[in-house]
Amino acid sequence: MNSDEELQKLHDEFSENTLTNFYLPFSIAPNFLINNNRYSIPMVIEESSVIAAASKSAKLWAELGGFKAKVISKVKTGQIHLIYLGEKQVITSYFNDIKSYLIKSTENITANMKKRGGGIIDVKLSDKTSDMDGYYQINISFNTIDAMGANFINSCLEQISKSFIEKTKKYKIEKNEINIIMSILSNYVPDCLVKAEVSCKVEELNIKENHHNFCEKFIQAVKIAELDISRAVTHNKGIMNGIDAVAIATGNDFRAIEAGIHAYASKNGKYTGLTKAKIENGVFNFSITIPLALGTIGGITNLHPLVKLALEMLDNPNSDELMQITASVGLAQNYGALRSLITSGIQKGHMKMHLINILNSLEATEKEKKLAIEYFKNKTVNNSNVQNYLIKLRKSDEV
Amino acid sequence: MNSDEELQKLHDEFSENTLTNFYLPFSIAPNFLINNNRYSIPMVIEESSVIAAASKSAKLWAELGGFKAKVISKVKTGQIHLIYLGEKQVITSYFNDIKSYLIKSTENITANMKKRGGGIIDVKLSDKTSDMDGYYQINISFNTIDAMGANFINSCLEQISKSFIEKTKKYKIEKNEINIIMSILSNYVPDCLVKAEVSCKVEELNIKENHHNFCEKFIQAVKIAELDISRAVTHNKGIMNGIDAVAIATGNDFRAIEAGIHAYASKNGKYTGLTKAKIENGVFNFSITIPLALGTIGGITNLHPLVKLALEMLDNPNSDELMQITASVGLAQNYGALRSLITSGIQKGHMKMHLINILNSLEATEKEKKLAIEYFKNKTVNNSNVQNYLIKLRKSDEV
Repeated sequence: MNSDEELQKLHDEFSENTLTNFYLPFSIAPNFLINNNRYSIPMVIEESSVIAAASKSAKLWAELGGFKAKVISKVKTGQIHLIYLGEKQVITSYFNDIKSYLIKSTENITANMKKRGGGIIDVKLSDKTSDMDGYYQINISFNTIDAMGANFINSCLEQISKSFIEKTKKYKIEKNEINIIMSILSNYVPDCLVKAEVSCKVEELNIKENHHNFCEKFIQAVKIAELDISRAVTHNKGIMNGIDAVAIATGNDFRAIEAGIHAYASKNGKYTGLTKAKIENGVFNFSITIPLALGTIGGITNLHPLVKLALEMLDNPNSDELMQITASVGLAQNYGALRSLITSGIQKGHMKMHLINILNSLEATEKEKKLAIEYFKNKTVNNSNVQNYLIKLRKSDEV
Repeated sequence: MNSDEELQKLHDEFSENTLTNFYLPFSIAPNFLINNNRYSIPMVIEESSVIAAASKSAKLWAELGGFKAKVISKVKTGQIHLIYLGEKQVITSYFNDIKSYLIKSTENITANMKKRGGGIIDVKLSDKTSDMDGYYQINISFNTIDAMGANFINSCLEQISKSFIEKTKKYKIEKNEINIIMSILSNYVPDCLVKAEVSCKVEELNIKENHHNFCEKFIQAVKIAELDISRAVTHNKGIMNGIDAVAIATGNDFRAIEAGIHAYASKNGKYTGLTKAKIENGVFNFSITIPLALGTIGGITNLHPLVKLALEMLDNPNSDELMQITASVGLAQNYGALRSLITSGIQKGHMKMHLINILNSLEATEKEKKLAIEYFKNKTVNNSNVQNYLIKLRKSDEV
């Protein structure tokens, strides 16, 4: 528990029935060069070797010009799902007639967002009756500027769904003919897209990686993630190691991000890898395009002390900048994973990092840890091997 | 930082470049009845109202017989991806001849797992040349008992990929004819499945929920998540709120779980909701079937002090039990979200919980907080409304 009672209360009030604080390591991945700006990136993750891999990739690519990232689009949506079994023409003209009223009725909620340049972009009625009897959607699109905007969007939607059944009297619609099932934002945000990429000459990278056909093998590995779902899932999981770690550090909701990104990975009917790699005219290019609805205000961003620190460490970015940073970290993570996989294998680096966890779980002393780290420098680390080593070491000490 | 230096060092050593600890609220969701056992479930999540919703659903369903959960299957897999441009028949017979050697070569790694009843189940060669020139996979299936098993599986795979190119000499294969691209476990675990469900008489639930056609409307809401991707993503996101919160508390890797579950949601070519609801013979049934590779040993489970506490709170479950518990929490979370959505709307409950965050961000005093909570009991909570209320309150105090 925090010794500062006020601060502890703040943490306790984020959720309900809170007993105490759960610690996750707050780490820093230095050496990122993104759109010509240097960043040391705060990341929160419990898995060993993620930070090491991100930093290593960042350093390499900083020497090759760094990451270029841009926001492609930034529209979020919400839906009001309803059942209306009457004539399509009746509900359509009703909707068109009261559309401006629907928007107007949210003014109290949207006033502040409008001042910042955001608000409701459009309200549309969609006929979904071919999917289910009488099923219509009111689709509302939003610009939430620097907020993730979930509460803002949901508040607007609920107001509009109330307003939508207020004016029925004047029309040939009975109030209870419109059955609102639910009103809720969507975490599927294919129009809130960011792209990050790196590129350099093929021979430059092959030399850097000390492998004569590194680029070709790398492209094959990316291709396999495109073709094979068993690989695609793990490929994308590695990307999310980096993205979630930045999301948590900056107070963003990683469940929303995960859901949006993985659904996007299956948008063409087959779940596939999120990165692309190619060689064109002797230039290697590696990129990621993902939906990423991030906020830098609202939620817990201005409450959680370490979230405030994380945002300061990133020079208090706006949401576009945070999208660019986060996508670049995802790309760096994937680069690091693929590099290990196609060269030394993933376990060498990973188990070197995880060795200390194994030693801790076997309650190794500081002296034993030092000896073990030295011993395993050029040997395969796994649970059995470390256990056997410690047993032998302890026996030899007894002698 | 923790005042206990040893303990802080342990936390710092989970990752690299660690600066300090990031706090997430460690909460408890009581009143779960799962397979006739009572649980108070430890959950780690920063989002308000998740714990409240889970607990409320748990209480209701405990009164209606509780959750029934079962593990359907528990096989994990890994792949060695390789390119071989020679005759299919040559590599096939080579593989068949050395298959038992491949398994034998992992004995050092698998010894402990075998003692616990697990290990390698099978090793197969798959022809993927129709996807890419010369592309083959060695597919290896595993039983990792109570471990998530990522390091175990990866160590086995890397050993097998080494062994696979050792014996080529005797055959008509040049060593460098086989190009191993990579060897890695899969986080896609459609054969590591758990199902959780609740059921009761339709009229019983309608009365409990005080809504004459609650069950029918609930089923429509689940159906919409089946039909519409924009809804499906958010529907599943809510489920993951619960699942990830248990995963983090119990030291499991939530990125792996997220990737596996969302990919599973798109397995039939269209991303869809993960829960199903139906009425048969007057009985309402609500269920979830998801892939869930959870560990209760290994990783950080026996290192992180609060993970140890969380597992103790659950009576030190084995991985089957933890799969059942976690799936039940996911189902409870979805039930709670849908109940709110189809009745009062999501914002009423959510913003009541989030009100305290808004008040904290506006630096409200304890007295102001109390007054505001009272004032907003029956009013719509949103940022503007709370801001306006506080401005007025402070003015009236000045008078």
